[in-house]
Order: sequence, then C-alpha cells, then structure tokens
Amino acid sequence: MNKMIANPAATTMNIDFQTDPSRYRHWRVEYDGSVARLIMDVDPDATLFEGYQLKLNSYDLGVDIELYDAVQRLRFEHPEVKVVLLSSGKDKVFCAGANIRMLGGASHVHKVNFCKFTNETRNSMEEAGEKSGQHYIAVVSGACAGGGYELALATDHIILTDDSSSSVALPEVPLLAVLPGTGGLTRVTDKRKVRRDRADIFCSIEEGIKGQRAAEWRLVDETVPNSRLDEVVAERAAEYAARSDRPDEAKGIELTPIERRVSDDGLEYSTVAVSIDREAGTATVTLRGPDADVPADVDAMHALGAGFWPLRQARELDDAILHLRLNETRIGVLLFKSEGDIEAVIAHDDFLAAHADHWLAREILLYWGRLLKRIDLTSRTLVALVTPGSCFAGTLAEVVFACDRAFMADGEFEGVEGEAAMILHECNFGRYATVNGIGRLASRFYGEPESVDAARERTGDSLDASTCESLGLVTAAYDDIDWDDEVRIYLEERTSFSPDALTGMEANLRCVGPETMESKIFGRLTAWQNWIFQRPNAVGEEGALRRYGSGLRADYNRERV
Amino acid sequence: MNKMIANPAATTMNIDFQTDPSRYRHWRVEYDGSVARLIMDVDPDATLFEGYQLKLNSYDLGVDIELYDAVQRLRFEHPEVKVVLLSSGKDKVFCAGANIRMLGGASHVHKVNFCKFTNETRNSMEEAGEKSGQHYIAVVSGACAGGGYELALATDHIILTDDSSSSVALPEVPLLAVLPGTGGLTRVTDKRKVRRDRADIFCSIEEGIKGQRAAEWRLVDETVPNSRLDEVVAERAAEYAARSDRPDEAKGIELTPIERRVSDDGLEYSTVAVSIDREAGTATVTLRGPDADVPADVDAMHALGAGFWPLRQARELDDAILHLRLNETRIGVLLFKSEGDIEAVIAHDDFLAAHADHWLAREILLYWGRLLKRIDLTSRTLVALVTPGSCFAGTLAEVVFACDRAFMADGEFEGVEGEAAMILHECNFGRYATVNGIGRLASRFYGEPESVDAARERTGDSLDASTCESLGLVTAAYDDIDWDDEVRIYLEERTSFSPDALTGMEANLRCVGPETMESKIFGRLTAWQNWIFQRPNAVGEEGALRRYGSGLRADYNRERV
Repeated sequence: MNKMIANPAATTMNIDFQTDPSRYRHWRVEYDGSVARLIMDVDPDATLFEGYQLKLNSYDLGVDIELYDAVQRLRFEHPEVKVVLLSSGKDKVFCAGANIRMLGGASHVHKVNFCKFTNETRNSMEEAGEKSGQHYIAVVSGACAGGGYELALATDHIILTDDSSSSVALPEVPLLAVLPGTGGLTRVTDKRKVRRDRADIFCSIEEGIKGQRAAEWRLVDETVPNSRLDEVVAERAAEYAARSDRPDEAKGIELTPIERRVSDDGLEYSTVAVSIDREAGTATVTLRGPDADVPADVDAMHALGAGFWPLRQARELDDAILHLRLNETRIGVLLFKSEGDIEAVIAHDDFLAAHADHWLAREILLYWGRLLKRIDLTSRTLVALVTPGSCFAGTLAEVVFACDRAFMADGEFEGVEGEAAMILHECNFGRYATVNGIGRLASRFYGEPESVDAARERTGDSLDASTCESLGLVTAAYDDIDWDDEVRIYLEERTSFSPDALTGMEANLRCVGPETMESKIFGRLTAWQNWIFQRPNAVGEEGALRRYGSGLRADYNRERV
Repeated sequence: MNKMIANPAATTMNIDFQTDPSRYRHWRVEYDGSVARLIMDVDPDATLFEGYQLKLNSYDLGVDIELYDAVQRLRFEHPEVKVVLLSSGKDKVFCAGANIRMLGGASHVHKVNFCKFTNETRNSMEEAGEKSGQHYIAVVSGACAGGGYELALATDHIILTDDSSSSVALPEVPLLAVLPGTGGLTRVTDKRKVRRDRADIFCSIEEGIKGQRAAEWRLVDETVPNSRLDEVVAERAAEYAARSDRPDEAKGIELTPIERRVSDDGLEYSTVAVSIDREAGTATVTLRGPDADVPADVDAMHALGAGFWPLRQARELDDAILHLRLNETRIGVLLFKSEGDIEAVIAHDDFLAAHADHWLAREILLYWGRLLKRIDLTSRTLVALVTPGSCFAGTLAEVVFACDRAFMADGEFEGVEGEAAMILHECNFGRYATVNGIGRLASRFYGEPESVDAARERTGDSLDASTCESLGLVTAAYDDIDWDDEVRIYLEERTSFSPDALTGMEANLRCVGPETMESKIFGRLTAWQNWIFQRPNAVGEEGALRRYGSGLRADYNRERV
C-alpha cells in the first residue's frame, strides 16, 4: 500500500479496504482445527499515512482494515473455527490502542470515520460469538491499553496474565483528553457491568489495573499466572468450542478478490455500480439483481462460493460504502437504485431462508445484517429511488427501509418497460435488526404496529407505487411528469443544508425507540467523542492530543460545559 | 433583573433563578378552578443579556426561568389545577423558539447549559401529567416553530388551530444549521411516533406544516377551526381533568422567597451551604439535616408549607445547583457533605412515605426526584464525603449514589464526636429513578442485583464505613490518618484532567443500561447538538447561527463527517 500524506483531499481511492492474508503487515492467523490464533504484530513502519510509527502494537486504519479482512475470512473461509484466540505477537505489550500521533495529525472527518469503522469491526467480533458460534477470547499478556483494551472488550472472554507487566487500562481521559470511544466506556458499564465508581477510577488511572483486582472488578474474566496460561487458554477454548454450533467438517469458501474498476467518477463492480456527481454532491449506487439462477441446493451454493450473487453483492456493496465514507467525504447524498429481475431476488431470499441453518447461508444472512447496519450508520443522506425495472425486494428492500427518504415511480415511464414494484419477503419482518435491536419496518412504523401487520399481509405480492405509498413503505410516489423535477428539487434542497446539521438530525431520526449497547456506542458515546474531537482541550495547539509525546503538558481551559 | 453583557466571566451570581409572579415579564397565569391558563407573552425588551430583542415570543434563559417558576408554583400552590392550557398572548404567533441572535452571541458553555435547563423544565411539564395528575395542553394559534414547537411537544395534548397562519415547524436544520435540540427530534420520533421519513421531511421544511396534515402525521393531536376552538379546548380540558387524581378542594402552599446570602465565595441558605474554592476549582455543598421535628400529621406539614424541611432543602439545593451550573462554570468538582441528625432524616422519609398519597407529600417526593436527576445531569464531577456527623440517609443518601465517587470516613476522627454512618430507606429502592428509568442503586449494581438485595436487607440499620464499603455503597473508606491526603490527592488529580473529557466520560458512565426518551434527549440528542454547537457551519463567522438575519447566506464546508 502506498503511503499518503495525512488528511488528503479525497477525490480518488486513497484508502483501499481490500486486502488478503498474503499482504498482511500487522496480523497473523494460525489455524488448528476448531481454534484459530489471531495474532496482532504490527509493523511500525507500515503506516497508512506519513508522520508516525506504529509502535507498541498501536494501530491506524490500515491495521484495522487487515483486522476486518481477517475477521471476515474467519467467518467464511473457516466454518470449522469455533474459537478465535486474540493475542499479541509482541513481548510485554498486547496493544497500545489507536496511534496517538496519527490521531493528533488526522482530520476531524478521518478520526470520526476511523472510529466508526473500528467500532463496526469490534461489533462484528461480538456478533460472531452471539450469532455464528465463533467465539473470540482475548489472551492478554503485557500492556493492554486504550483501544487495545477496547479490542479485548469486544471478545467474549478476557484472560489476563497475572504478572507485573500485564494490565488493562483506559488512559484516554487522563492522558489524551479524549474518551475511550471505541466502545470502551459503554462496554465497561453495560457489558462488563463494572460498578460505576470503579469504572470512573479505572478510566482515570493511566497505568491501568492488573492482577486479581482486574478480575474482581470484572474488567477481565480471569487472571492466570504465566505458568498456567497455556493450559487455561486451552481449557477455555475447549469450553467455548463445545458451545458452538459451527460445523466440524465443513469446508470454507474462499473470499476471492473483488473485481472492480475504479475511475475518477465512480466504481464498477459485477453487481454494484457507483456513479459520483461531485458538482451535485451525490453518488448513485445501483444494485444489480441476480445474474444467475438460484443454486439447485446448498452444495451448488457452496460451489459458487464468493461468486454466489447475495454474497458477491454484499462484499461489493460493503466495499463501495466504505470507499464513499472514507474517500468521498464531500458526497452528501447516496442515491440507491436497483435494476434486475425482482422475482430472482425473492427466489434468492427464499433459498437463503430455506437453508438458514446451513453455515454458509447463515453467514451470508448475518453479513447482510451487518452491512445493512453499516448503511444505517453512514452519515450521508440516504435516498432510495424505486424506478421501473428496479428489484427492491426482500433483502434489497431493506436498503429502501434504511433510507431517509424513498421515492417511487408511479405508473409507466416513457421509454421504459413495465412499472416500478416492490415485493416484501418474510426477511423484512424480523431477520434484519438495526442497531437499536428492532427491524427497519418495525422502526418505521414504531407508532403504528398495525401498519407492520398490514405490510406483512402483502408479503410476496408485487406492490405498485400507489400501494407502497398507501402502505407507508415509501415516502412519495411521483409519475413520469413530476419525477425528474421532484427528485431534482429535493436533492438541490438537501445538499444546500449544513452537512453537520444533517448528520446530527439523521443520527437521531434513524434511531427511534429502544437503545442497545451497540446503538449507545454509536449514539451517546460517539456523539460525545465527536464533540470532544472538536474541543481545543483535545485537538487545539495546546491540547492533549497535539502535545502528546512533545514533553509539554496540555494546557486546559478549565471551563466546564 | 439587571442586564448583563453576553458571555460574562462568571464569578458572582449573574443569573438569578429566583423569581415570582409579581416580577414576571413574559408569562401570565390565570386560574379558573381545575383549569389554569399559562400564557406566554414575552416582553421583547426584557432580555437577560444585551444585543437582541425577544421578538415573536422567542425566548432566552430569562424567559425560561420564569416558566420554571410558574411550573413549580402550579404544582405546589395550586393542587386544584388539573389542566394547564399553554397558549400565546400574541396574535399570529405561538412561540418562535429560542432567540437566535441570543444563541448566535452566547458562549458555548451558556448555550449548552441554557439548553439543559430548558430541557429539564419541559421534562417536568411532562412529568406533571404522568405522575402528578396535572396535564399540560398546548393550544397553538399562530406560528409555532423550533423551541416553540418543542415546548408544545412537552405537553400531553396539542391542539392546532386550523387556519392559514397556524403551523408547527422545526426549521433548525434548514434555517440555522443546528438541531431541534430541546427534545424536538426525540419527541417527534419516540413520543409522537412520526414515521421517520415524515419526520425527516418535517425537519427540513422551514415553513412547517399546518392543518389536517399536521394531525395526520401525528405532529399534533387535532386541528380545530377557530370557530370551535374554545369549545374543543374546554372539552379536552374537562377530559384531562376527569383523569386527574389531584384533589378538588385542597389549598396550595405558597412558595415563599428563598432566603439566601450570596458572597464572593459562596452561598448560605437555611439548609444548604455552598463554599467555593476557586483556586482548587471545587465547591463544597453542605446539606443540613432537619432543624425541626417531623410534623404531627399532614395538616401540620401543610401548615409548615415551604418551611417544611424536605421542601425547603429541595428548593435551596435546586437553586444552588443551578447557580453553580450557570454562574460558576470554572468549578469542576462538587463535593457533597451533610451534617445533622441522621435519624431525623429517616423520620422525614418515613413521614413522606407514609403520606405519599397526600398531594403535598407526593409533590415533595416528585420534586426530589426531579432535583436528583438535575444533579445526575450536572456536568461536574460529583463527589460525596461521608464524614462523622453527616446525615446521608434515605433521600439524602441518593445524593451519594448520584456521585461519581463517594468517600467515607472510617472510625473515629480527632476532635469529632461519633463515627460516620449511612442509613438506607425504602425510598432508595425504587422511588427515585435516574433519567435511564432505573434507580441509582439499581444502576450502581447493574451487574449484580444480589448486591441490591444485600443492601435492602440492611434497610434502617446504621451502617458504618466498613459495612458501607463491603456492601459497595461507597467507593472507599479512609481512616483519620489517611483521609485528608486521600481526598486532597484525588481532587488534585481530578481537577488536572481535561474538563471536556470528564464531561463526556461522566455522561457515559452515569447512564448504564436502558435508555428512555429522557435519557436519549440528554444523551444522543444533546451530545450531537453540542458537537454541532462547535462546528464552524453553525457557529463560525460564516456559519448559519452567526449569519442569521444578516441578509447573507451561510457558507458551508461541504465535508460530511
């Protein structure tokens, strides 16, 4: 990967989210039957930007891109892996967290999107244990601080070596004047259920907590002397493996390289096209329906592997969204379109639902669940355009329900065959939850559950624009005469608003009703962190992030807000 | 009230939260049996700061201080009032929301604390209907925009006049590049359950929505033509009054002026003393126990009125907290102490619990509930010092459980008689919820409900320091030899940290587990708003808040974060 200067004015693909184990600089994965070892061993010189070194297993986005890749491959390429032991390849240090000089030099937008992506990967590690029978266990030897401890917090079980050099710590507040924002504060209270005043102490101690006290306070699950570490780790791995419902004998599929063509104004994949209009500040993301029939059976699906349309599209869309987030920060609106055989989409949803117990079908469904959440959490205005020839049905209809607005073409459009339609599928009623823990239609109709029922009764029907509008599935239906003007006027207006106000508004309107640990991380915790990331006490010339390592102490404005 | 220049370097009581109806400049209250009319009629010239006029029933903190006073008096002075009709005294305008020129000129810290206080008052209006049988009904004629609509949103029922000049609107995002942050976004989705895309449309339309559509979208409960307005309002008032359990014949008590002595380094009330150490950045808030016996019966309590110790202390502490928040922004730590007869505190809690069905006892208990939440939400480090002679029991013990740390004196202290003790009361187990909807002890022991049970079993016992420590009720117990050093070292360390990082950390650690609409307003919504309040697109020289009314359009940085 070529290095870039920090804070690039992103107009092309500066940051590439695609990698594979042959290119890893920071991680190793070792396989041994049902147990894999995921070893963090950061190359200090292989940084994404210039101006810092990744000492002490600290990380930047490049390290996290590799981690995400490894986590995804563990799910798809290794159905046999039931336990992932997360450990360090360095002596005396587990992980020092996000690199501070990188953070100090990064733009606000990079910091925020970096944190969001790292949060998503940690959530997916947690989800692996909850939903896919692949349990992460952190084996902590050496210093485990800040984002390093937050990484451990995302595992199902933390084993801390009981020696003088091993500790867990969240030193962000005392050391850097920022929060442990990658889930740290939320997981300490809501997941590990550390008593509040103890959490307060823990987050105020630069050097962290070691040994028995860390276990007593529930910061780790157990502490183990070095002499017994291997034995205990093996025991725990066996216990967690015994709980797993992942198959023993299944063979994984290879996540082959994504094929894509990058140009100045877009991206072209096999099932996704992204067309960027920089003048307008919009990107059109077109999702293409299946280009092959539903496989005859699970073996045929397995034979297709990464080529199987739902999986291929998920990977391509995932890559596109991440690209837009990090490399196209001035694009304020994502327009989602689709094209293809809508019945074929439903047929694929039927196939996946019928085989949801098969490990690969389950992984594909779970991946779509994570991907849809990634769309929900993308801080751009999301608009669905449901036009003649589109194929928003079932899983793809969830993209429509993730949008802030959905416009649907009503009736015939000149020069296009057929009328726009949507089809609902059972997967729209519970399979895919947003970060708040309830489904997108359940969120949409939070005040009127009877509308969810009314929609459910039409499952499988081809629903035209007026029906979708009356069922409340889309925001508005426009006919051929009005369509272009209505969409244009809307986009002109939307892109004239303050991008920051829109980000805040969307973050609130998209999260109706209940909150979960996940939604609290992206709402409460992240919003406070983003505020702090704007405050001179953190990022100003005399702030802690800037002065870290300079020998000068930060000079704080003492006003309490 | 004397006017002050904006953004004063607050060192004395610039902003006074005490007022009474004889001094109101902005509100009128008219009483008619079970129905009161609360009429907003803002005097444009009676501003709290210089540099703006309160046109169109817009408000600043001064207007809201009067509203809070009126809301409190409606509860205590008018037990017979079951319905409060909130309306405007102006033609063609209900309320235009927070004054924009005031916001544009205000410091960040003033904006944030102003919003917090206005939120708390709106929450208390909602709580009046939920818990005290006093229902607010908004009668909206004319433009009802921004904070004006947020005020209406806090009522139990919104009646919108169906005419060409009456509308509801949240124009903050398109007009000002900030959020409807006084509960607006959260109440539109979570309380009024407006469908998300409609909420998105509504929040994007400067001119708002009027007539039938406002009702269809659930933005209001009903629209009524002018000709039938009085009739419908009377009907609704009668309906809500019929639901109320407030007494018909009871006589209120007068909220007599709070007596206090203000000096440069503190405040002295009858039951509260505040001593400020500006050098150290701390304020010591001493709560004094009862200075009289428990009344013989409810009539005797009523005769005491505002002089009844629990009510007197609540009012004094409320005033002190608000003063510290707005006028002493450089004080980062509040140290809570108490002194007095601990058994007398418990006797008062017993008395209130025994008479909780009496309207006045209920009001006092509910007021303490609101006050304790105000403490929870105060963005200063909260520390309890439980020392010999202190009286942290029952309701006052909730103050300890609201704190980030609680230190307790262990054993005898030189020159002081007796040992520190705490006493738990049934009110510590469910009566007082934090904004997350669960009690402070339930929050404290979120991971160990058995610890709640263990504490409950000791209800009524005098608990010494080592017992409190082993029950987990305090952070640490120190003996006479260590006490001074431990507390001093802790305070020196705490006040050396970034005030912003502490605010963010405390806002997260204090809100474990579930979220409610209230906690979402103070968490998700407020945190995003505070972020936006730091962004150049809103507050910069070319930002929307600054340029509003200048004839110049805001010039936005188009980067999406």
